Amino acid sequence: MNPTHFQYDLLASDGAARAGVLHTPHGELPTPIFCPVGTQATVKAVTPAQLADMGAVMVLANTYHLYLRPGADLVAELGGLHAFMQWDGPILTDSGGFQVFSLAEMRKIDENGVTFKSHIDGSMHRFTPEVSIGIQEKLGADIIMCFDECAPPTDRDYNIRALARTHAWAERCQAAQSRSDQALFGIVQGGIFPDLRAMSARFLSALDFPGYAIGGLSVGETKAEMHAMLEVVEPLLPANKPRYLMGVGSPEDLINGIARGVDIFDCVLPTRLARHQAAMTRRGRVNLMNTTHTHSTAPIEDGCQCYTCQHFTRAYLRHLIIAKEMLAATLISIHNLSMLLTLVSDARKAILAGDFSSFSAEFLATYPATSSAE
Amino acid sequence: MNPTHFQYDLLASDGAARAGVLHTPHGELPTPIFCPVGTQATVKAVTPAQLADMGAVMVLANTYHLYLRPGADLVAELGGLHAFMQWDGPILTDSGGFQVFSLAEMRKIDENGVTFKSHIDGSMHRFTPEVSIGIQEKLGADIIMCFDECAPPTDRDYNIRALARTHAWAERCQAAQSRSDQALFGIVQGGIFPDLRAMSARFLSALDFPGYAIGGLSVGETKAEMHAMLEVVEPLLPANKPRYLMGVGSPEDLINGIARGVDIFDCVLPTRLARHQAAMTRRGRVNLMNTTHTHSTAPIEDGCQCYTCQHFTRAYLRHLIIAKEMLAATLISIHNLSMLLTLVSDARKAILAGDFSSFSAEFLATYPATSSAE
Repeated sequence: MNPTHFQYDLLASDGAARAGVLHTPHGELPTPIFCPVGTQATVKAVTPAQLADMGAVMVLANTYHLYLRPGADLVAELGGLHAFMQWDGPILTDSGGFQVFSLAEMRKIDENGVTFKSHIDGSMHRFTPEVSIGIQEKLGADIIMCFDECAPPTDRDYNIRALARTHAWAERCQAAQSRSDQALFGIVQGGIFPDLRAMSARFLSALDFPGYAIGGLSVGETKAEMHAMLEVVEPLLPANKPRYLMGVGSPEDLINGIARGVDIFDCVLPTRLARHQAAMTRRGRVNLMNTTHTHSTAPIEDGCQCYTCQHFTRAYLRHLIIAKEMLAATLISIHNLSMLLTLVSDARKAILAGDFSSFSAEFLATYPATSSAE
Repeated sequence: MNPTHFQYDLLASDGAARAGVLHTPHGELPTPIFCPVGTQATVKAVTPAQLADMGAVMVLANTYHLYLRPGADLVAELGGLHAFMQWDGPILTDSGGFQVFSLAEMRKIDENGVTFKSHIDGSMHRFTPEVSIGIQEKLGADIIMCFDECAPPTDRDYNIRALARTHAWAERCQAAQSRSDQALFGIVQGGIFPDLRAMSARFLSALDFPGYAIGGLSVGETKAEMHAMLEVVEPLLPANKPRYLMGVGSPEDLINGIARGVDIFDCVLPTRLARHQAAMTRRGRVNLMNTTHTHSTAPIEDGCQCYTCQHFTRAYLRHLIIAKEMLAATLISIHNLSMLLTLVSDARKAILAGDFSSFSAEFLATYPATSSAE
């Protein structure tokens, strides 16, 4: 397969940071970009119209979840994910690998794939590279992922074995692909080991994918280890292809990722935090349940242009949380997603203006440090 | 108090049905109209922007709930309900009476008011007519209600005693009112007894309120009894004042109420049903969880112009319900509220066109009958 709709135009660089445009069958993706996650074909608590209002361009959906419920055949019968969830822009699906390997005692790996128990009803299922691609072709996203094995990041022997499988499976995924309107990304693995990461980046680059994901990070390693792995991989991946850092989305990780050449990010953090009363700001997290907000007429974040900040006070949001009103999750999700979308969009503007290093330095100087990847 | 902002213009009648405009400090209210309920200063699961999109004009909020949480003083400090919940249109608050009397073993009535236990923390509180008006003045709605006693509808002796209190309290509420930018409505009570209802309508009319509510219906009596009470009251209430049938909102009750001279309705039914997977249509309720919708590419209701019906299939909504996604409640609430708003707006158009009796007959002929008020 040689997909024809996925040209990546590199518009500007600033150090390793880069700004570009990825063309997809559902429109242009300005990069770098943050992508909201719609695990079960919905970004939790927000409508597609609200997502579009806040400037979201691409959303993710999870193959594992949609395969189990409502099923890939049903999604295909209903016109594919775009029609099903009414998202007209680009969509990305993961391979199901990460979720399946996270099942711990509920799965068994062999060289051909993984047999696992559904977390919903305990029924037995099997994913192979071919099965994962088949499901993703039925779901019909613009960008799909190779079926890979996400190993514990610090176990070198495990990573060596897993990487062999991931690479063999990448070739099988490529061979299995039958649609030319989907871009299949290879996934670089290798834990926290520079030599394994380099080997993986080189191996996958040779397979000439239309884009590359960097997997297995933000799963327990330190921030310094994450940064080191990005720095190993960046010069080895082809500059004319987009790079996607999977599952990473705290504000500082986004800026640090962009500084190391990443183009695409996704993370459940903004919507998950929103359902737990935490708002994300450029000065760190704010727990809106705190009594300090009882009388506050301030928005979550001064200067924020999102619907929530343009209308609602912290005092009102705190009331909604305490009264257990669903609107709390919706309004805080709108802010958190907008905050990340705007932060990455501002980073893109800084790259285009040749100003990214000062933008990045200024942001990181005021953002409260955390010790491990989130 | 003689509020100056609440002129009611009667534009057309068709039998007892009438179309008009009620002027309020927050804009014009075209009547008849259905009003979504925002118990805790939020219409559950929808944003004010979504409410405005669907054509909502006035929303309700509940004095009992807001008094307990976050407290009327806090709402006042934050600029009143309009600013707090960001609803620029008219707002109506009830008196707290209905909720307090619903507490059963948790309240004690005397001639001066009601002492009750909070359903949240068991703390003791007391509402009197003066306390209720004081709270409603702090909340700052456009239309406020007299503190009344809602008696079991079929207990004649109880209704006689309760009516005496309700009438004495109506005079005390009127005397207690200190703001001229709020319209205080009297509430007609009297259970299912025509003589008591007539007495109540006459007594309250003599007090010259800027509007009249009809309370104590849709609480267990039959549809025929509800209709009979409306027919008793309608000719006795002044034609130049708006009439509000409290807590009634099933489609057939709306049409039957409009046919009997009612101008304003509210009900939690559309949003409550939405959280229990039930969609409201002009042909009756649809349980979206039903397996018959698994493959359905149809919207909830053909021809419906709401955001939900313009975008989403029954199959997708069923998926959201089964996957326990919050978006299900949001999208079904948007449809159910839109459906009632549009039904009443269509009834208004029919009245203005002199066509209401055929509109009403046609609707009721196809709407599935239910035996008791909902």
